[in-house]
Amino acid sequence: MRHVTIYDTTLRDGAQAEELNLTAQDKLRIARKLDELGIHYIEAGWPGSNPTDASFFDTVKSHTFANARLVAFGSTHLNRTTPENDPNLAALLAAETPVITIFGKTWDMHATKALGVSLERNLELIRNSVAYLASRVDEVIFDAEHFFDGFKHNPEYALLAIRTASEAGAARLILCDTNGGTLTSELSETVKAVMTALPDAEIGIHAHNDSELAVANSLEAVRLGATQVQGTINGYGERCGNANLCSIIPNLELKMGIQAIGPENLRRLLITSHFVSETANLRPFMRQPFVGASAFAHKGGIHVSAILKDSRTYEHIDPTTVGNSQRVLLSDQAGRSNILFKTRELGYDLDKTDTTVDALLKELKLKESMGFEYSVAEASFELMLLEALGRKPDYFTFRHFFVVDAKREEDAEPFTEATVIINVKGQAEHTAATGMGPVNALDRALRKGLERFYPNLSEIRLLDFKVRVLSGAVRDTGGTASFVRVLIETGDRHERWTTMGVSHNIIEASWQAVVDSINYKLLRDDKRRAKEAKE
Amino acid sequence: MRHVTIYDTTLRDGAQAEELNLTAQDKLRIARKLDELGIHYIEAGWPGSNPTDASFFDTVKSHTFANARLVAFGSTHLNRTTPENDPNLAALLAAETPVITIFGKTWDMHATKALGVSLERNLELIRNSVAYLASRVDEVIFDAEHFFDGFKHNPEYALLAIRTASEAGAARLILCDTNGGTLTSELSETVKAVMTALPDAEIGIHAHNDSELAVANSLEAVRLGATQVQGTINGYGERCGNANLCSIIPNLELKMGIQAIGPENLRRLLITSHFVSETANLRPFMRQPFVGASAFAHKGGIHVSAILKDSRTYEHIDPTTVGNSQRVLLSDQAGRSNILFKTRELGYDLDKTDTTVDALLKELKLKESMGFEYSVAEASFELMLLEALGRKPDYFTFRHFFVVDAKREEDAEPFTEATVIINVKGQAEHTAATGMGPVNALDRALRKGLERFYPNLSEIRLLDFKVRVLSGAVRDTGGTASFVRVLIETGDRHERWTTMGVSHNIIEASWQAVVDSINYKLLRDDKRRAKEAKE
Repeated sequence: MRHVTIYDTTLRDGAQAEELNLTAQDKLRIARKLDELGIHYIEAGWPGSNPTDASFFDTVKSHTFANARLVAFGSTHLNRTTPENDPNLAALLAAETPVITIFGKTWDMHATKALGVSLERNLELIRNSVAYLASRVDEVIFDAEHFFDGFKHNPEYALLAIRTASEAGAARLILCDTNGGTLTSELSETVKAVMTALPDAEIGIHAHNDSELAVANSLEAVRLGATQVQGTINGYGERCGNANLCSIIPNLELKMGIQAIGPENLRRLLITSHFVSETANLRPFMRQPFVGASAFAHKGGIHVSAILKDSRTYEHIDPTTVGNSQRVLLSDQAGRSNILFKTRELGYDLDKTDTTVDALLKELKLKESMGFEYSVAEASFELMLLEALGRKPDYFTFRHFFVVDAKREEDAEPFTEATVIINVKGQAEHTAATGMGPVNALDRALRKGLERFYPNLSEIRLLDFKVRVLSGAVRDTGGTASFVRVLIETGDRHERWTTMGVSHNIIEASWQAVVDSINYKLLRDDKRRAKEAKE
Repeated sequence: MRHVTIYDTTLRDGAQAEELNLTAQDKLRIARKLDELGIHYIEAGWPGSNPTDASFFDTVKSHTFANARLVAFGSTHLNRTTPENDPNLAALLAAETPVITIFGKTWDMHATKALGVSLERNLELIRNSVAYLASRVDEVIFDAEHFFDGFKHNPEYALLAIRTASEAGAARLILCDTNGGTLTSELSETVKAVMTALPDAEIGIHAHNDSELAVANSLEAVRLGATQVQGTINGYGERCGNANLCSIIPNLELKMGIQAIGPENLRRLLITSHFVSETANLRPFMRQPFVGASAFAHKGGIHVSAILKDSRTYEHIDPTTVGNSQRVLLSDQAGRSNILFKTRELGYDLDKTDTTVDALLKELKLKESMGFEYSVAEASFELMLLEALGRKPDYFTFRHFFVVDAKREEDAEPFTEATVIINVKGQAEHTAATGMGPVNALDRALRKGLERFYPNLSEIRLLDFKVRVLSGAVRDTGGTASFVRVLIETGDRHERWTTMGVSHNIIEASWQAVVDSINYKLLRDDKRRAKEAKE
């Protein structure tokens, strides 16, 4: 069976997307998820270019990945210097990654116009930079920027540029359709010419989607012998985005008989896609192939009756192979097996015929129709599961909260104060706190009431807080009166967990997520203690 | 020059999209716009299948189109009847369109399983239906449903089915990739086989996007000789959508040298795309090729400096050919030239040496270091610019706000109330309002105080509301006490705009964004009135 390697650049080229902004923490979380998906290379940033990337590479040094090789990205050395004295190459080496990718000019016009060097000097920059790095790291990958445009204008020079990189020690040559303007038929001819000219080189493809052809172009290059595909999760990237790995990987695995991440990992595709969009706080694209909410949703009457006879009639693949599921709009059938799958994953052994499964399915459908999205908040799902099983411990009971924000013209920021009443172990606790905002004030007042009983709560840190207006509702009532979903990520010294709340009211949605987060912490501590007592 | 005809099915197959619902009036407005774009065929609905379509065909009879031929869509006649007695065929003829498209089964499994007829009887249904309609309307088009899957399983039968339609009088045979699962390389081989088997037939292509290959597949069929492309505006359609005409048309016109709608009409592509998404009340897809807001947006410093030298360096086509334009995003790398570019774009003619440019650059960098991101909130940028120029009108002045959220154990959601004091035109306005949440309550109270003075404010709708915790701050103080950035998207009947606020306190950040949004609306109305007075 043929293999290709998948090279993800969500954290570097993907982050060039107009609406995408990732913190160093976001990047680390996404890198972990990509590793779990079985991605072979993770291009994590351009260490010389900005403080976020520099801070990320510092943090990531202490982390080991199970599958993925981490890649630092940069350019060939500057014209005015030498590799030894080039600040960019130094920053690349300082990132201490096993792999370095550098891009170089292969379009003659770019060398002379954008870079302002002679064609011969440009080849020197490539040769020097690759050779310098190749003796210092495991693997150097050469990104041939604008290769297809370059080949169109001056095929000899474009080939000479990549040949130079190859001879200087680049392990792979990546043909980039940087502007995304190349038609599949043109790309096909160009790739054939490269294969003929450099029969022994390892060739990869890096496509952009400006002509809506990035997936087709990537698959065509692989069909002709490319052994690496570069792209991003959900096709995020500058302008119209990069080649979408969420479409390329299943096409390779399920249709072309080529192994990329393998069938087991492939089932994690949907969850990875959601994880990245949620972390970037971007609305998932419903019509996205393979992993979109609508990808296997059937609306028309004829289609629905046909798929009930045989799902192949209107589905090109089995949706479960990518972690998705069939949805029949109006009368939804999906669920039972999903519930069993998830509860087993969490360590609760339910029987197929258990009535809890039905109760849970009903609750799940109700909650999801309101906008809850449990795939990104498994801590909240586990709490809901325990509730349905009648096994959720009663750590505290809500009685009342009250929160005020007031601002006068002379204030820079509002004054915020919250009061909370809860019952804990038979006692009513009434606490008050100020805060940097209403959610912070509520969170502090609640913890003030609880920490006397549960001192471990002082360990937890709220790591992230995200709010999303849910689509659909927006149209009915206008933005500020819509349903909002709040996601909170919390951590202690053992782990991190995500909880969720949904409401018309952002305070209420945040409160739900904070309450879930605290309950989850107390639950995990109990479990840990029980386990330790056993051992 | 080669020509192909464009067949739009936004109103029929497009309306199968999960989120798309069109009234008969919506359909008529879209049909007019498609006609203006120079579309050759408009498939307007399935008259026998639902009341919206029946009502639409009644209304449209009185309308004449400049370019487009209207098409009614339906299926071959029912097994239990004859063409003369078939209610579907009768409804098609009653629509009185010059063109009728019927689909028939060409995948053997579909004939026997989904339809439940013998293979021979299926050919009879096709033959009878096409022949009956062909003698009664100008043109009958045959949609070969599941043609590519059918050809894979039983090529002889698939070819026999379309040959039958052709011999019965179908003017065109449309090869449909109904499930959207066909790889471009497979499709290529199949189209070649059809061209060889039926060298005199007019062949068309109807692709779906389930493998993210619909555009590539449509272009490949045309390259091999297909003379018609079926698709939808923005790629709307069931599951992952239909082939996207907004990408296919410019690829044909600008890259393949094939005339579809002509270069003059092509400039209307962006406006048509927006018109359809607005009419369908769907959020435009930013990363959409050719017509998306991000399609020619440049963020990275290297890219920006290169396109200022020569836009071909990072743009595959001239954006104005499809009605789009180049955008330079404001970001923390922004320098003097970005500021000048942006202010000129907004219609403010600043000189390079103007001290306002320095003041603005300083303010921009300060605000961006706090977490403001003007590239996504240009309305807030314009207000900041006016402030720097000393030309921001004083519509109202803030004095005070006070907002309360209270929840007791018996409540499902908190009770929320806001009071606001502002000065408007010399008067103090003190108003109060409840809301679905604190921001909604504040927004309502503020507008209550303003609408008496500025009645146009009743036109605006808040379309989206996004909250993001900003990097850096998260680590220092924990999630709920971090800096948050709120983005609000607002619209009226003329346009949409985005404003922004940043604060530790989500209420304060939201308040800033709401205040900017209202100021921007009042500013735009003033500008519009001034322009009208001049004309």
